[in-house]
Amino acid sequence: MQLLLLSSSNVYGYGYLDHAERELRARLDGRTRVAFVPFALQDHEAYTATARERFARIDCEVTQVRGAAEIEAAEAIFVGGGNTFRLLKTLYERELLDVIRARVRSGVPYIGTSAGTNIAAPTIRTTNDMPIVQPPSFDALGLVPYQINPHYLDADPSSTHQGETREQRLQQYLEENTAPVIGLREDTMLWVDDDVTTLHGRSSARVFRRGAEPIEIEPGSVVALV
Amino acid sequence: MQLLLLSSSNVYGYGYLDHAERELRARLDGRTRVAFVPFALQDHEAYTATARERFARIDCEVTQVRGAAEIEAAEAIFVGGGNTFRLLKTLYERELLDVIRARVRSGVPYIGTSAGTNIAAPTIRTTNDMPIVQPPSFDALGLVPYQINPHYLDADPSSTHQGETREQRLQQYLEENTAPVIGLREDTMLWVDDDVTTLHGRSSARVFRRGAEPIEIEPGSVVALV
Repeated sequence: MQLLLLSSSNVYGYGYLDHAERELRARLDGRTRVAFVPFALQDHEAYTATARERFARIDCEVTQVRGAAEIEAAEAIFVGGGNTFRLLKTLYERELLDVIRARVRSGVPYIGTSAGTNIAAPTIRTTNDMPIVQPPSFDALGLVPYQINPHYLDADPSSTHQGETREQRLQQYLEENTAPVIGLREDTMLWVDDDVTTLHGRSSARVFRRGAEPIEIEPGSVVALV
Repeated sequence: MQLLLLSSSNVYGYGYLDHAERELRARLDGRTRVAFVPFALQDHEAYTATARERFARIDCEVTQVRGAAEIEAAEAIFVGGGNTFRLLKTLYERELLDVIRARVRSGVPYIGTSAGTNIAAPTIRTTNDMPIVQPPSFDALGLVPYQINPHYLDADPSSTHQGETREQRLQQYLEENTAPVIGLREDTMLWVDDDVTTLHGRSSARVFRRGAEPIEIEPGSVVALV
């Protein structure tokens, strides 16, 4: 399996996907036909146009995914960000989870950002998104055996807001679940070759396990999460 | 119906529930036997102890809810905050939604904070919480006909974080749903007498409707949401 799982497609100070252009090119490795899954946003056509323009600049042709045919024909799959619940619900409705999983397991590169990164995990239980629609299950693609929290955000010590911090939310996740979680700050991404995950990007990532203190891992590190 | 729906139990500069003591006393109106629903946090006993200590200071006796019996015996119901998904899943497992709804419709005061406020709405689709467990449905008590977003947070113009703002998340909710949403800043609460909702507290609240610009309503205003 060849995955590239971005925390975010938009990083402060960069244009759309620009912070990850080197990794995008390396993951595609000359493949040019990219199937784009736009279901996390409401307007699929507009979202596809954005992706198409960006991928044209790295010499790739984007096809908008509507059903299994575009997945079957693709050399690479890109799943864009937005609302994770909407994305997963649509994938269930169009019966696309199995075909994506099968193609990726057969070697087709999978690139995800934000919601597209969340659904690469076993479940969407560590998404930050609002549950605006109800998918039939929180179970997702399970391409990796650990959970991911994109857009990971450190607590702001100057804030007077009393809502839970991200770390508190992830500790609540671990009260109810056993899979470890990697919190990906926005300028980071996971590079996955089969069972080996490496952290890329410009910041450390924060790893949460049940019953243990969180730890920071540095870019370039192999992420030994399970 | 007599509801008091708090955005938060902990407001900056105040002790637990202190910012709402006047409204709590008024809503209870001499009733002293309060059933406490602690399911939004993991440790029900510790959470009940916290609530018991606080309510003792307004001359109320707190009973920890384990099943329908405590709801049936109560003069008032208090549902504490924590994780909304965990709260709702446990209410389904213990088959408590119908009994709470029936008691409140018969006149028993309902007090909610945060997650306890979320479940008073028709669904939990406007919670901020992480979906750490999967309830069988997002449908909740439906004591009011509008959605509520507790801990409503204005966008920070100085932030470099690229995750969606709260307003963007609620606009995504309205792309998929038609019920209006009231965003309750942390020092605000809703006072509900049957079909009449009034905003209380120290800040305005922000109301979101599909196809309309959000509006601000001031404390003391009747909230005409549907």
